Amino acid sequence: MKLSINQLKFIKSLHERKYRQKYHKFIVEGVKLANEVLESKRLVVELVIATQEWVTENKGLMHDKMTVLEVDEHELKKVSLLTTPNQVLLVANQSDQPINENTVKNGLSLYLDDIRDPGNFGTILRIADWFGIKWVFCSPGSVEFYNPKVVQASMGAFLRVNSLEISFSDFVAKFPDLPTFGAMLDGISIREGQLSAPGIIALGNESKGLSWEIQEQIKHKISIPRGIGGGAESLNVAVATGIICAFFAPNYK
Amino acid sequence: MKLSINQLKFIKSLHERKYRQKYHKFIVEGVKLANEVLESKRLVVELVIATQEWVTENKGLMHDKMTVLEVDEHELKKVSLLTTPNQVLLVANQSDQPINENTVKNGLSLYLDDIRDPGNFGTILRIADWFGIKWVFCSPGSVEFYNPKVVQASMGAFLRVNSLEISFSDFVAKFPDLPTFGAMLDGISIREGQLSAPGIIALGNESKGLSWEIQEQIKHKISIPRGIGGGAESLNVAVATGIICAFFAPNYK
Repeated sequence: MKLSINQLKFIKSLHERKYRQKYHKFIVEGVKLANEVLESKRLVVELVIATQEWVTENKGLMHDKMTVLEVDEHELKKVSLLTTPNQVLLVANQSDQPINENTVKNGLSLYLDDIRDPGNFGTILRIADWFGIKWVFCSPGSVEFYNPKVVQASMGAFLRVNSLEISFSDFVAKFPDLPTFGAMLDGISIREGQLSAPGIIALGNESKGLSWEIQEQIKHKISIPRGIGGGAESLNVAVATGIICAFFAPNYK
Repeated sequence: MKLSINQLKFIKSLHERKYRQKYHKFIVEGVKLANEVLESKRLVVELVIATQEWVTENKGLMHDKMTVLEVDEHELKKVSLLTTPNQVLLVANQSDQPINENTVKNGLSLYLDDIRDPGNFGTILRIADWFGIKWVFCSPGSVEFYNPKVVQASMGAFLRVNSLEISFSDFVAKFPDLPTFGAMLDGISIREGQLSAPGIIALGNESKGLSWEIQEQIKHKISIPRGIGGGAESLNVAVATGIICAFFAPNYK
């Protein structure tokens, strides 16, 4: 079948942040990711657009409340954001998890200051997921959690890791006793510092690092020392996040 | 001025691997990167295509043997691979560094098995540069060191880190006494293993991990343990590289 003009228009509108927020929905693409979403049952999925082949193979993942539109690859391509051919696209409802205060108070969380690159954000969600971190907070204006490139790069981590936009000041006001860590070039080496949960680790923007405003509110400044003869100016923010989390992990709660 | 048809054709040919290898040249774009290349004087640059503004501000970086073509942004866009406007594009000669055997024998090196994503490769070069690693070897058929996206993502690391395509077997035959480490899901935790240079750390392909052929030649299998409650299937290969290098670094030679 072909998609109607209204269906095309609706799905393509979800390529834009404005309409994702208006409808409170987002797009998940590709067999691996779509199947993981359907199997997890953590999100409400009302619309599935897929090839006949995918529908035949995945009957078990569908239920009565889903609208399933069988289309050919050419038709799917019209609404897809992927460059390589795929078989399935889901429209899922965004899920707002209330902050579980005990999880934040007793565990390790991340705070991303003005992160801009969706690939970096998705990769950081994947890192959080690997290390069992449940909350990744972001400054207002950061790249959006439900951006399709974030969803794609997170490799399914968006199903298990929660995110919320909140200013660092508001976060600190909400959790005044939680130790604050921040990655800075002049911080104490992660090899020397006493790194242990609970706490929140703040990481800066790709090119500017942590804003002064946030730096002033950080109790424990930490850094990843350069190797002998090292030349790079900085590390990629997702790589830095991975390294810091790995040094925290032995002391996890 | 306008670029001639032959100039356009030549520069655009360097967008392709085939012609980069034929002419033994590659493209460097963007003010920050181009200026770093010119300031370092490590590469032969015979052709500079830049806006009048850039040329005026950077007279000191040019010399007689360089052809400098002043063009407007519209003309520059015709040969550019970047999506955002820029001011300068260099055509530089590829540089083949012979393997410094002592550096490899006494230091830490990386081996990338079938790495495909240029962003990952560039990010890994940046990590190597941060930790002072001088050699990143790659299996034949990996993404190319001089691929413009690798060059861009490496943030200048290609000036300080060397790379060579070589099969793992050939590498091991050349350095039979060098300890071999490999990142595998069933390896010994990086927190428990005795990690110290000298050695070579092998990292696998983005979706398939290390090939069996290489796994069989690895003496020390290492892994990055998942955190408690962690859900992700794997970490991004560049993130994994960063974490492993950070655990090796204290014992660097």
